[in-house]
Amino acid sequence: MDISSLIQKNSTKIILVILDGVGGLPINGKTELEAANKPNLDALAKISACGLHIPVSYGITPGSGPGHFGVFGYDPLKYEIGRGVLEALGLGIELQKTDVALRCNYATIKNGVITDRRAGRIPTEKNIELTARLSDEIKEIDGVKIILKPGKEHRFCLVMRFPENITEKQAMVKDTDPQKEGKVANEPFPLTEEAKKVADIAKKFIEKAQEILKNEEKANYILLRGFSALPDIPSFEEKYGLKSASIAVYPMYRGIAKLLGMDTIPVEGDIKEEVELLKKVYKDYDYIFLHVKKTDSFGEDGNFEGKVKKIEEFDNYLPEILSLNPDVLVITGDHSTPSLLKAHSWHPVPLLIKSQYVWGGTSKAFTERECLKGEIGIIPAIAIMPLVLANSLRLRKFGA
Amino acid sequence: MDISSLIQKNSTKIILVILDGVGGLPINGKTELEAANKPNLDALAKISACGLHIPVSYGITPGSGPGHFGVFGYDPLKYEIGRGVLEALGLGIELQKTDVALRCNYATIKNGVITDRRAGRIPTEKNIELTARLSDEIKEIDGVKIILKPGKEHRFCLVMRFPENITEKQAMVKDTDPQKEGKVANEPFPLTEEAKKVADIAKKFIEKAQEILKNEEKANYILLRGFSALPDIPSFEEKYGLKSASIAVYPMYRGIAKLLGMDTIPVEGDIKEEVELLKKVYKDYDYIFLHVKKTDSFGEDGNFEGKVKKIEEFDNYLPEILSLNPDVLVITGDHSTPSLLKAHSWHPVPLLIKSQYVWGGTSKAFTERECLKGEIGIIPAIAIMPLVLANSLRLRKFGA
Repeated sequence: MDISSLIQKNSTKIILVILDGVGGLPINGKTELEAANKPNLDALAKISACGLHIPVSYGITPGSGPGHFGVFGYDPLKYEIGRGVLEALGLGIELQKTDVALRCNYATIKNGVITDRRAGRIPTEKNIELTARLSDEIKEIDGVKIILKPGKEHRFCLVMRFPENITEKQAMVKDTDPQKEGKVANEPFPLTEEAKKVADIAKKFIEKAQEILKNEEKANYILLRGFSALPDIPSFEEKYGLKSASIAVYPMYRGIAKLLGMDTIPVEGDIKEEVELLKKVYKDYDYIFLHVKKTDSFGEDGNFEGKVKKIEEFDNYLPEILSLNPDVLVITGDHSTPSLLKAHSWHPVPLLIKSQYVWGGTSKAFTERECLKGEIGIIPAIAIMPLVLANSLRLRKFGA
Repeated sequence: MDISSLIQKNSTKIILVILDGVGGLPINGKTELEAANKPNLDALAKISACGLHIPVSYGITPGSGPGHFGVFGYDPLKYEIGRGVLEALGLGIELQKTDVALRCNYATIKNGVITDRRAGRIPTEKNIELTARLSDEIKEIDGVKIILKPGKEHRFCLVMRFPENITEKQAMVKDTDPQKEGKVANEPFPLTEEAKKVADIAKKFIEKAQEILKNEEKANYILLRGFSALPDIPSFEEKYGLKSASIAVYPMYRGIAKLLGMDTIPVEGDIKEEVELLKKVYKDYDYIFLHVKKTDSFGEDGNFEGKVKKIEEFDNYLPEILSLNPDVLVITGDHSTPSLLKAHSWHPVPLLIKSQYVWGGTSKAFTERECLKGEIGIIPAIAIMPLVLANSLRLRKFGA
């Protein structure tokens, strides 16, 4: 149900910690959470409401966008972040409503045919050099500002900044990447009537880039993918009446928070620096989202021990977070990243809600199998925000 | 959500065992599953993901059609199998897209009024004799082939085989059965504009049959019910990219599998023969559905001990199935058939998914009450297939 009509403001404080990809699978009988020595988290689980959440739907493995959207209460099946937008956010580009974002590849073309879609995976230094050259020589096209940022190896990001706001429909242009070597690149074909202008700028950009790159041995062409504009999405403030901020080291998660209208406070370092910042800005916000990245990174690398250590490191800082005495503290992940799979997975994600209005006493530790015994049960991720708002007494009674 | 767009093929193997009606209710404190001595199933439950599924919806007792559809991931509220179609499948008639199937009763008519809707429940032998006579004398009507097959007592099945494909709308004709003795039979009235032809053939069939049966003392009339064509339904291959087959002794379950485009491999006997066949054809398919009927039959008979023994018999063959080492093995029922009720019931059905990507260790046995402690929780039946596909690594990530 839409809870917007039940929102009431008060002075309670909410902290959400996302341990990215925290859920796992057993190796030698224990998951990463089960193997970790984390007395503070386990003690907290004993007195909290515990459970598990399903990020998108049964059996569905979410990307980072859908994973976070769910925990923030935005149905990931309704609100999708375009690939280009996510790439731009990940590279730290501050997107505006006037922007169309794309993922680009340097590629090799010969006699009009793509012979290498990744230009032989050119070194990142070469990418930086080429992208700087393109930036210098293509500053704008027909009044549209061109913003370029290099990624890794052959990848870079293009943002077209228009003089006016751009809708999602206006950004619907076909990928030029033919997905297979030996083929001709696609035209940037407009998939809607409204997308003609974006397609036209894309076409001109490709022509100009090809002219500039023509003497390159490998990176003599570019392929464009994931044309997208910012999704039309209600802000956290509009939806929940919460003044909110994100504390995240990695640009992508700041970007996702910014999409929802959160203040994104810059921070470098890791958990220590994030918790320090949390303590500093705590008084200024109703809701603070703190993102821990490396649980996911170690999971993706298949580094079970590294993920365990990162969980233990977070456990060390938990007392500092608890000392702020928030009315509601949520600790969960955006999805699971089992070291066993070296990838995101579909499994339900451990969830803990600390509040004075819970039963508690059902789970002995913050682990997958102990959370299964908890009072929250297994719920869809989008049910977390209503529970959080209820526990902070920010939802009025429904009906008389 | 529709997972079709996330499907990726690989070489993993999936086995689904349906122990028909396996769920039960306690008699003297124990359900059939709890009373059964089944060391192999219980050992498997300990290392598997366990849970329960709700076939259709809370409190809804499913027939065999909806029960199986749910486990195969087809929403039973969206896809319905007509009664006539189900009857024909149960009698082993291989239906085609050109067919309309009906359930028929022999009945007694006197002065234009139905005096016995079941013709005094004539013996099956009499039914066989009469149906053979009708078959001989009515081979086709206006170019439509007439196929008849006797059932038990007064019941028989009529299939009209048209020269062209028949849609569900074309088969929508009103039952002629007035449902009460002392009434006039209904006309086979077309319920849609498109159904006029089928109604017309039905009318002519009734007239011809009445003429042939006019000297019968009891079975001198026929009543028609459940006009239906094959549902328009995507195949298993289309929906999931799985090459699939069914192993089922009873025709109805082969029929349901065939509706979904599975290969239906003939087999006679019981569990032993089914498992032998499974081992023989295992290498040829991605997904094999093995159906055990008699758990349900004993439940329907109120034979608690018989159902227990059948569960124990399956347990004996489980090691042979496990020796195939499928990537995913699912064991569940299509619904519950508690001996206490002597009928299908609405209760959640025990569910076990064996895979290397589960937590395990939550359930001590494959029983209703132990599955309740499992990591799957209580899920709708249509969530089973997404979980199975996820566990066989056949679903791509959703979103970036």
